[in-house]
Amino acid sequence: MSRTLIEQNPDLRFADIDVRQLAHRAGRTPFFAYDRSAIDARIRKLRAMLPSGMHLHYSIKANPMPAVVHYLATRVDGFDVASAAEMALALNAGTAPTEIGFAGPGKSRDDLRRAVASGINIHAESATQLRLLTALGWELGVQPNVAIRVNPDFHVGHSGMRMGGGAAPFGVDVDQMPALLRELETREIALAGFHVFWGSQCLHAPTVIQAQRQSAELIAQLSDGLRTLPRFVNLGGGFGIPYFPGEAPLDLEAVCEAMHEWLPPLHEKLPGTKAILELGRYLVGEAGIYVCRVIDHKVSAGRTFLITDGGLHHHLAASGNFGQVLRRNFPVVLGNRPDDAPRQRCHVVGCLCTPLDRLADDVELPEAHIGDFVVVSQSGAYGRSASPIHFLSHPEPVEMLV
Amino acid sequence: MSRTLIEQNPDLRFADIDVRQLAHRAGRTPFFAYDRSAIDARIRKLRAMLPSGMHLHYSIKANPMPAVVHYLATRVDGFDVASAAEMALALNAGTAPTEIGFAGPGKSRDDLRRAVASGINIHAESATQLRLLTALGWELGVQPNVAIRVNPDFHVGHSGMRMGGGAAPFGVDVDQMPALLRELETREIALAGFHVFWGSQCLHAPTVIQAQRQSAELIAQLSDGLRTLPRFVNLGGGFGIPYFPGEAPLDLEAVCEAMHEWLPPLHEKLPGTKAILELGRYLVGEAGIYVCRVIDHKVSAGRTFLITDGGLHHHLAASGNFGQVLRRNFPVVLGNRPDDAPRQRCHVVGCLCTPLDRLADDVELPEAHIGDFVVVSQSGAYGRSASPIHFLSHPEPVEMLV
Repeated sequence: MSRTLIEQNPDLRFADIDVRQLAHRAGRTPFFAYDRSAIDARIRKLRAMLPSGMHLHYSIKANPMPAVVHYLATRVDGFDVASAAEMALALNAGTAPTEIGFAGPGKSRDDLRRAVASGINIHAESATQLRLLTALGWELGVQPNVAIRVNPDFHVGHSGMRMGGGAAPFGVDVDQMPALLRELETREIALAGFHVFWGSQCLHAPTVIQAQRQSAELIAQLSDGLRTLPRFVNLGGGFGIPYFPGEAPLDLEAVCEAMHEWLPPLHEKLPGTKAILELGRYLVGEAGIYVCRVIDHKVSAGRTFLITDGGLHHHLAASGNFGQVLRRNFPVVLGNRPDDAPRQRCHVVGCLCTPLDRLADDVELPEAHIGDFVVVSQSGAYGRSASPIHFLSHPEPVEMLV
Repeated sequence: MSRTLIEQNPDLRFADIDVRQLAHRAGRTPFFAYDRSAIDARIRKLRAMLPSGMHLHYSIKANPMPAVVHYLATRVDGFDVASAAEMALALNAGTAPTEIGFAGPGKSRDDLRRAVASGINIHAESATQLRLLTALGWELGVQPNVAIRVNPDFHVGHSGMRMGGGAAPFGVDVDQMPALLRELETREIALAGFHVFWGSQCLHAPTVIQAQRQSAELIAQLSDGLRTLPRFVNLGGGFGIPYFPGEAPLDLEAVCEAMHEWLPPLHEKLPGTKAILELGRYLVGEAGIYVCRVIDHKVSAGRTFLITDGGLHHHLAASGNFGQVLRRNFPVVLGNRPDDAPRQRCHVVGCLCTPLDRLADDVELPEAHIGDFVVVSQSGAYGRSASPIHFLSHPEPVEMLV
């Protein structure tokens, strides 16, 4: 393609690279590309606004690509992990065990054994886990670093996904905490910390603020009467990113301003205790795209379908089949004609033999041709790792951190 | 455990094996087990009822475990595949290329090239695919076996998942067929067959009967004026299995009886043309279980949660997150106390840190203990391969054909 032609019709640029070049670099489509500078910018922005003393963790489950984890290792203060494999990723990235937290309602004996042996912080979510940790501590001759995950007793509105304020398999109900704390003491295990996780994907700043304030109050209250203060308190995450038309970004300024109010009293109450904010999607979700190609184009019963080489096996969330009640379109553009005027209403689908495999329903796009790049943004979190990649046994998507 | 104790409280038996023994054999939980004798029995039952001349294909996407595919290779008349990897599985199992059909709205050039080189039947779903096949035929010096997949023009009610009777990315609209058939002739490619796929997971016999009858009529009508008759016609599948309370099995007898009526006229119209029934889920879905273990047990806000080492990363459909609009429970029992009286209402959840990870909501089960086996039946199709196995990086489930 001549330089002139490129100038006439510039490709979408991602991380300062033409989408076409990205595809050459990937070697094939479909691929995910993550922009390291966007991740860095997001973290810098956060750091500039967070009160000093607020530590930032990355929740690996949002995007466990090793390059992403290694890149983040020098930029965040620690990692939160949800399995032994994620723990190994965090340790391999050079993170100190005491800066790693392991949460999850169903930790297996093998997971816990590896966690105790590694010296990471284990967020016990039940009396069972606590007892198992004690036994493993004796077996391995190691004092386990035990935190307790609390199922908050307050209700949170507006959150994308509520994870507290009612019956839940996560953590320990507040009214069961005193008994568990006593049990911890009789087992002569020092409490490493508290973990409160109230929800995720919340775009409504007042909700985030209220939930964080209540989490801090809950922790302060639970700390009353402890023989030694916890080393850390993890206040969860929950910061959402906009996916759909009409969604506005979270008002980070408001959230951080409020933090300047509620954090000092917590620090006063728990001097020397580290406060942790645990973010996954918020750090990486907007820094990623999923790119596939139009491989066919057909009209059926008057509707136009763009058929791509991608689909729900790579990006289940974009197909609307991962926790969404109402299917909505992720933002989609044609990467090689981003500035062309919309000319057709069409349906962008994946290559699978199922009506579930939709990437965008009834969208206005420029006139599309076979070979065009379909770029789905907001794809940096819960993409490849949250998709059924073996479904229909197609090739896996490439992943690149650029 | 003593023999006496086993006699007092026998385990659930699957394929004539105690669930506990199955778990020892798997080496760990969670695992999927598929019962070869149940698959065989289902095929024998079908064979006994199908009219002679109705060929039976297995649709590999339902369960692509190699052992399952190899086992079926000697029991069905051919395979339907949805990707180049599935094609390789079918060929590796010793199936003749002419007994393999390859459908899919988004076949890549690489897929098609491998398919042409292998000599399998390729179900073209658009003019684009047809042109690409012609080009690849010239390039490889091979006459491709081209069938055409038709998007049926009739509406089907009651089907679990409709795949025809309106705008769809699958196949070629009926009104576009004459032009495509003319194009096929000008390219001097002999038509290998027709493929009509009207839906899936249908439990309502009158719907299946009507759809099959209409498919046969459609094919007869499309065959008018063809210079040579197609080698085969694939009439799709769509036979459902009951998953949820209140669902009755498909009345197979009625469906097969009707076949005895509509198949002879089709054979008369197309003498020598093979009729194919393409079943996936119906052959293997009821022959499989998913087994995980209770690893924790907790009460939160008055509700009891059984927390297992399994979850949606292994069995997305059972969690209600794969195409279901309303979440309903798959059938669940405690495998080591199948005969105990129900004693508690509880929620069975997976081990993941997400409220989506539910295996059974509000079910009555016997009093459960840590270590108990949770057995999810109707898990032989669209289980492991249709789940996000890397989500949270937990170990993969074991699969066994027993």
